Amino acid sequence: MSDPRGAKPIKLDPWLDHYAARASGLSASEVRALFAVASRPEVVSLAGGMPFVRALPEDLIRTALDRVMTLEGPTALQYGSGQGVPRLREQILEVMALEGISASMDNVVVTTGSQQALDLVTKLFIDPGDIILAEAPSYVGAIGVFRSYQAHMVHVLTDENGLVPDALRETIVRLKAEKRTIKFLYTIPNFQNPAGVTLSAERRPEILAICKEHNILILEDNPYGLLSFDEPVPPALRSLDEDGVIYLGSFSKTLAPGFRVGWALAPHAIREKLVLAAEAAILCPSSFSQLVISEYLTQADWRGQINEFRGVYRERRDAMLEALDEHLPELSWNIPNGGFYIWVDLPEQLDSKAMLPRAVTELVAYTPGTAFFADGGGRHNLRLSFCYPTPENIRIGIRRLATVIQGETDLLDTFAGTGVLALPTANESVTAPPPDMS
Amino acid sequence: MSDPRGAKPIKLDPWLDHYAARASGLSASEVRALFAVASRPEVVSLAGGMPFVRALPEDLIRTALDRVMTLEGPTALQYGSGQGVPRLREQILEVMALEGISASMDNVVVTTGSQQALDLVTKLFIDPGDIILAEAPSYVGAIGVFRSYQAHMVHVLTDENGLVPDALRETIVRLKAEKRTIKFLYTIPNFQNPAGVTLSAERRPEILAICKEHNILILEDNPYGLLSFDEPVPPALRSLDEDGVIYLGSFSKTLAPGFRVGWALAPHAIREKLVLAAEAAILCPSSFSQLVISEYLTQADWRGQINEFRGVYRERRDAMLEALDEHLPELSWNIPNGGFYIWVDLPEQLDSKAMLPRAVTELVAYTPGTAFFADGGGRHNLRLSFCYPTPENIRIGIRRLATVIQGETDLLDTFAGTGVLALPTANESVTAPPPDMS
Repeated sequence: MSDPRGAKPIKLDPWLDHYAARASGLSASEVRALFAVASRPEVVSLAGGMPFVRALPEDLIRTALDRVMTLEGPTALQYGSGQGVPRLREQILEVMALEGISASMDNVVVTTGSQQALDLVTKLFIDPGDIILAEAPSYVGAIGVFRSYQAHMVHVLTDENGLVPDALRETIVRLKAEKRTIKFLYTIPNFQNPAGVTLSAERRPEILAICKEHNILILEDNPYGLLSFDEPVPPALRSLDEDGVIYLGSFSKTLAPGFRVGWALAPHAIREKLVLAAEAAILCPSSFSQLVISEYLTQADWRGQINEFRGVYRERRDAMLEALDEHLPELSWNIPNGGFYIWVDLPEQLDSKAMLPRAVTELVAYTPGTAFFADGGGRHNLRLSFCYPTPENIRIGIRRLATVIQGETDLLDTFAGTGVLALPTANESVTAPPPDMS
Repeated sequence: MSDPRGAKPIKLDPWLDHYAARASGLSASEVRALFAVASRPEVVSLAGGMPFVRALPEDLIRTALDRVMTLEGPTALQYGSGQGVPRLREQILEVMALEGISASMDNVVVTTGSQQALDLVTKLFIDPGDIILAEAPSYVGAIGVFRSYQAHMVHVLTDENGLVPDALRETIVRLKAEKRTIKFLYTIPNFQNPAGVTLSAERRPEILAICKEHNILILEDNPYGLLSFDEPVPPALRSLDEDGVIYLGSFSKTLAPGFRVGWALAPHAIREKLVLAAEAAILCPSSFSQLVISEYLTQADWRGQINEFRGVYRERRDAMLEALDEHLPELSWNIPNGGFYIWVDLPEQLDSKAMLPRAVTELVAYTPGTAFFADGGGRHNLRLSFCYPTPENIRIGIRRLATVIQGETDLLDTFAGTGVLALPTANESVTAPPPDMS
């Protein structure tokens, strides 16, 4: 039907009534457009989680590529096993051994980044309305997957030593009294994204015991464990309990995310179903990517390279902490001992999401805390990433952020009590940048 | 509880009551173990769908790898856009133009093989019990994905010219009278897997009109369209209707499956949701794989290389047809004009699944027809793949198959009427080999 005034009619989605119920969980973040602006080179982005892959010596990758083509080109170009290349699965055991895990390669499933493992585990276990427990705050990409399968996510109090066992116990008891079905606890025990905290060694057996008592599976997501700045992290939850934990690992932070290779280590019966789910989803992970990583692990001093990364990220964390001390002494934040992130508490009157457009105008970006809660929390928090920008740019970025916060505070002081700047009502939209907008 | 007789207790899955309802759709094929045996080198496998990647000149790949590392190493190693690398999406438009498709790169989503596009589309559209229409027979990997989201698949009569329009219309009318919800028609219009048939040019507008009339989306899966042996295939369904078709393409058959790069071209509103679903599932497709393919398309004579592949597969098809004529003249089969597969009709008394163990004993493997039906059909059919073995091995394989069929027929003749060899009851298990067991 043409519009008599000649205006172009708005084209609605003709398939709107065809989508599955779960598709309603997929909605674009309202700040997505803002992050697109923030990816411009003049903006210092403290928003994304991109590793600093330039620290990786290019010749190590070239050697691996060359050897793959020379030694096993036709295999690299072909379909492979749905579970992953056996040789790589053996090498993954060596990587996990660094965190105390002993396992069989039969129970390792290689995935397209550990994000796909998250997706497959959620697909296997979650019926609409099922509950997933997670830290408060939690990883935005997990919140997205869980929502896409219509899970209901419940956050558990988390402090500077990670998940609080008493809070976990109380949450479980309360939900059970409400006859809710809790399927698993999702946790990032080391240098957590976004809070930067590590679950203490003392709490680990306690968390395991609580879940065992209540028959709750644990999904342990550990992309950052090897990136410690001081002492190594405590043994993985999986190293203490092989029947109750699905462990997720990744080469994205210790090598490079561009190959998209991660893995799940699962109890045997679950592993069988995971492989079938993986085959349904993608037939098999990339043979080429897997063999390149396998050659890299065979030829390169990969432990030494991870030490190099530790040094790079430690320097950047230090630069960020110093700049925060200098420019934003009135705020508080955690001091992470590894990983990529610092979690900042803002004064109650500041809203991190409402402040973001002003920040981008001042050429600095961060991720609002609301991105990391499924329940509207996090408005007075923000996540700062120190992984990607240089120390110099980190200092510039924090200086700009201080200007933004000062301006916002001045504005609020000016209009205090007038009601003009009332905070908007909370909503649940996920507001993290796409992975490449760092 | 220990077993008093000292026997090792059978370990049951302690998480059995935790799985989602959809997980019941994931079960291992009963002939999976058999295909593992069939992957031994002494077995001529006519079962899998592995392309013959050795026909690809290695130096073309090496040049692409070298240029990626030289020109854009840090980008290749990093996270990328969830929708895919823009330059590759532009090149995908050139590939699709060969089949008459005109589109915008904004509506292309790069995926981890076109299998992942199948998975994402199904996740977006299918609620449990929704109906998906498909050819009879249809692609085993699609049956697996559809089942994993609890779709109900209904096959539509298919003949040597593809889907039969009258049968499609009747099926839709019948299902609508039963108040069933039909979400989409899944079709492989060119050199269909497994039947080898191509939807005729005359039928294409008719299929589109029927779906439009009944408000049914079309999912057009086209991995083989460029691998024609004689004249080019008719224009893609998508080239005739851009609002009603989601088109899936792949580099797995025209270049190499080891990179796992495919794509979906979708109407704009659907594309937006597809990108969000893709980001939830894997964050982004492999930057490295995408850039290698993009460099290959930029530097190599990829159209000429596809012509080479056509020649290789035509020779193999001819070898298979000649061997069938010579050794199995009593059977009937289609003559495919492209692609990888020949579909064979067996005499009524032969069961292709029951016969498979004997075939593997005789060192030849095929895929039983039951793999390609969601409803227990296909017992008197089998699929033969001519893509991977050499012409010489194809002849050996068909000779062995003739021995198997002769032996099975003799056995049945001997016991005819005694009831000893009654066919087992039909079941719905999917019985295709994993992709690397070709």
